[in-house]
Amino acid sequence: MTEPVQLVPNNSLITGTPEEGRQLAVKMARLIIKVTQPDAAVREKLRPIYAESPEMLIAIGKVVAIEFATIAAANNYWR
Amino acid sequence: MTEPVQLVPNNSLITGTPEEGRQLAVKMARLIIKVTQPDAAVREKLRPIYAESPEMLIAIGKVVAIEFATIAAANNYWR
Amino acid sequence: MTEPVQLVPNNSLITGTPEEGRQLAVKMARLIIKVTQPDAAVREKLRPIYAESPEMLIAIGKVVAIEFATIAAANNYWR
Amino acid sequence: MTEPVQLVPNNSLITGTPEEGRQLAVKMARLIIKVTQPDAAVREKLRPIYAESPEMLIAIGKVVAIEFATIAAANNYWR
Amino acid sequence: MTEPVQLVPNNSLITGTPEEGRQLAVKMARLIIKVTQPDAAVREKLRPIYAESPEMLIAIGKVVAIEFATIAAANNYWR
Amino acid sequence: MTEPVQLVPNNSLITGTPEEGRQLAVKMARLIIKVTQPDAAVREKLRPIYAESPEMLIAIGKVVAIEFATIAAANNYWR
Repeated sequence: MTEPVQLVPNNSLITGTPEEGRQLAVKMARLIIKVTQPDAAVREKLRPIYAESPEMLIAIGKVVAIEFATIAAANNYWR
Repeated sequence: MTEPVQLVPNNSLITGTPEEGRQLAVKMARLIIKVTQPDAAVREKLRPIYAESPEMLIAIGKVVAIEFATIAAANNYWR
Repeated sequence: MTEPVQLVPNNSLITGTPEEGRQLAVKMARLIIKVTQPDAAVREKLRPIYAESPEMLIAIGKVVAIEFATIAAANNYWR
Repeated sequence: MTEPVQLVPNNSLITGTPEEGRQLAVKMARLIIKVTQPDAAVREKLRPIYAESPEMLIAIGKVVAIEFATIAAANNYWR
Repeated sequence: MTEPVQLVPNNSLITGTPEEGRQLAVKMARLIIKVTQPDAAVREKLRPIYAESPEMLIAIGKVVAIEFATIAAANNYWR
Repeated sequence: MTEPVQLVPNNSLITGTPEEGRQLAVKMARLIIKVTQPDAAVREKLRPIYAESPEMLIAIGKVVAIEFATIAAANNYWR
């Protein structure tokens, strides 16, 4: 029914810039939600709930921050 | 009654690609839940609860992000 | 409708001082909330909620701490 | 009344394999709960509560992930 | 109205001792709350709430632990 | 009224063994709670609340795990 979700876009943590690394962190965080809840209709229903909840918005920020830490290390912080 | 759960598939953190590393992170996170709640019927009952809760989906994302950080470091970030 | 949000100001994690690094951590944390909830009116409505909730203020502190850990490492801790 | 709890089994973070490292992470996480709540009867009463709560199962996963990160680093990721 | 908050006292993560590093971690955690809620009267009103909530006290401990990890690394752990 | 709390016992992160490092992590976590809630009578009142709450016991485990990660790194993991 549902095709397998690719969890790491381009199968790489290496990006050209911090901005692209940050975008990758956001995507990787979303893809875990997608693989845990593969039903797009359910995910669509949940979106307005977390997008209007300050608690959940903060929690999303935490997940992205953790993913980004890994990606930044992988890229030697783009120094 | 319940057979011992293997907590680290293949007993290794080394994977060929970031994608496989990410899949390992998801599996390792799930296996801790399995070892803490060994009853498959209970776990099955809990699945729709967390899969429709934005808060819990975000929390799962956090656990996977932490597991992945370790796996990515183990693999020198697949550089 | 909404223009794309730049997630990493100046597209760099490198800052001249710890103070600037800390400010960057605060900004990067806020930008994830902005990209997840692009409607400025909604974000404005949420602000007094988290700003008067001790739980959420603490949670914001956690996100900033995680972002700052990455930025500090990127800058070799400004040693 | 209660004998002192040993917090690190074998007083070492070094293990032969990732699997043993993961088991150590689970044990170390449990031992903190034991030292904080030394009454075995109370702990036994709490077990079904967290084992049937998806939120708490996820939270346990997070603790184990953090403990494991330390153990994995201690063992140079068993490379 | 409100003067800008200095987020990193002395604009440095380097301290003479672990004790001073720990105090810095506490201060840096508090300063994020201050910058997010600049109204001192509101912060004063929130203080008894978190100071009598075991959950929030634990959460504060988590933030300080994360800030301290960064400060300790910056100081090569005062070895 | 209240004497200043020493936040890092012996003002050092270096310990002889992992067991002592773990005990230090527990102490350091508790000392942050002490400095945030200096009234011993209040802390005593809160103890049974968190010690019988599985959620809070897990949360305490998380704080200790984070403190321990720092202490373990400081001690080169007692390799």
